[in-house]
Amino acid sequence: MTTIGFIGLGHMGNPMVHHLLKAGFIVYAYDVIPNAIQAVTPYGAIAADSPASLAEHSDVIITSVQTGQQVADICMSHDGIFSHMKPGKLYIDCSSIDIATTNILHAEAAKLHIAMLDAPVSGGVAGAEAATLTFMVGGRTADFEQALPILKTMGKKIVYAGPSGSGQAAKICNNLLLAISMVGVCEAFTLAEKLGLNPKKFFEISSNASGQCWSMTSYCPVPGVIENVPSNHHYQPGFMAKMMLKDLRLAHHAAEVVDSPIPLGAIATELYTLYVNQGHGEVDFSGIINFISTKQEKQ
Amino acid sequence: MTTIGFIGLGHMGNPMVHHLLKAGFIVYAYDVIPNAIQAVTPYGAIAADSPASLAEHSDVIITSVQTGQQVADICMSHDGIFSHMKPGKLYIDCSSIDIATTNILHAEAAKLHIAMLDAPVSGGVAGAEAATLTFMVGGRTADFEQALPILKTMGKKIVYAGPSGSGQAAKICNNLLLAISMVGVCEAFTLAEKLGLNPKKFFEISSNASGQCWSMTSYCPVPGVIENVPSNHHYQPGFMAKMMLKDLRLAHHAAEVVDSPIPLGAIATELYTLYVNQGHGEVDFSGIINFISTKQEKQ
Repeated sequence: MTTIGFIGLGHMGNPMVHHLLKAGFIVYAYDVIPNAIQAVTPYGAIAADSPASLAEHSDVIITSVQTGQQVADICMSHDGIFSHMKPGKLYIDCSSIDIATTNILHAEAAKLHIAMLDAPVSGGVAGAEAATLTFMVGGRTADFEQALPILKTMGKKIVYAGPSGSGQAAKICNNLLLAISMVGVCEAFTLAEKLGLNPKKFFEISSNASGQCWSMTSYCPVPGVIENVPSNHHYQPGFMAKMMLKDLRLAHHAAEVVDSPIPLGAIATELYTLYVNQGHGEVDFSGIINFISTKQEKQ
Repeated sequence: MTTIGFIGLGHMGNPMVHHLLKAGFIVYAYDVIPNAIQAVTPYGAIAADSPASLAEHSDVIITSVQTGQQVADICMSHDGIFSHMKPGKLYIDCSSIDIATTNILHAEAAKLHIAMLDAPVSGGVAGAEAATLTFMVGGRTADFEQALPILKTMGKKIVYAGPSGSGQAAKICNNLLLAISMVGVCEAFTLAEKLGLNPKKFFEISSNASGQCWSMTSYCPVPGVIENVPSNHHYQPGFMAKMMLKDLRLAHHAAEVVDSPIPLGAIATELYTLYVNQGHGEVDFSGIINFISTKQEKQ
């Protein structure tokens, strides 16, 4: 049976470990916060003292942390996992991080004959809990095949995006588009309402016309238009505005490196910066409609 | 049988008149360009000398012209149709014009006891030819009911949007969102490609994820990804960039009047202004991807 080492036991990592254990994998678990480790041992996870000892025990290592710097430290610091992984072992990074760092890690792993995949997810905490995440995976196809049965226990859709870095690229570009379309939906609904249109009527028209987008039809930022969305619950996340801002900044850095213009993406980034700076970082990202229309989240 | 007067026999008006005649209506037709009138008389339309004489013969008058100024001239000039329409007759404006002008016309029509609907369309020339237009209609519901059998001969979806001006508002807000999502799709696909992602692969991922929008899945600006779109045919319209710019400017004016911020809409307007000024006004609006990615339309 494959032994998996899992580093990063936050809102995402915790339920992901749970699903791996339910599927029968042996899981060594590590987090810088001891309480986060204690939260998964009752499920059957084995507490690891350090990334190094975790690496010694594991066939496959998965990381799910916040930043590229954290991933680089875990992998490449003096006592990091790369120096304790045997050649041929597999490393899967499920964090959403910048492409530059991902590329450095892929190059270093290749030198050490460690197989590596970048495999950021979409679907949020709800997706992690329900094991319905989408994994966007970059790396070699043979390594993708090996990872597939593991990722399938945590997700519903596992997509091979292309060579090293393609997983991060796909996630970054998708979320860039998500932010733009969400702000666009907020601008359109706000203008519609100020022009006297009933929001439900505008939804009925635009959702069946060329304005249709996921941000409107699956995540409508106007309360009471569709069911089961954060706007109906005072914009409780869902997907926090600060996480969207993080992804927009990743898009910004990636675009800079390859000289790709993102004029709407740049403005969306600034709007989310303003919104987060006003204290709404932990509000759902669809709450930005209240910034556009100048309404309070809670009336 | 209802007699209809139709003013504005361009790319849209010509096929619309054709469908009205096929449905059995008597149609008086007028355009400032005599050749445009000659183009519909072979179908059975009766040539009118002037808007005034057309108004004398018609139970219902429809206009389909370019600008608010043109509509105002047709309706309210010294010898315009309003001074020749009897109380109780119906006027339907199918042009896409600014809300301020529409509101003036509605007020003037009400004074004269002329029933009026603003009923801009979406679906373009292809929709007009196939009688599959969507009509977004503002005005009184009783007048809407009266117009329904007429509009149904030219369109597939006839939506009641709300009181006077709501048709224009719905179209403006929808097309604002369309422009934003189209530019967003162009930014995302351009960045994806520069980051090494195959466009078909990115489409596969994002069209099934939170980036999904009509601009991507029904009108993809990258050639060869989906069928029957202008991008596959050197960006022959379709919906011309200059028409999108016109609609964005209508959104801009409407937003100004009601103090509604459209930060992404404003940048999209500037991008389409640049694109049109570079000589691409008659290219399909999805061609703006070539401006974002700096590629030529024809290779």
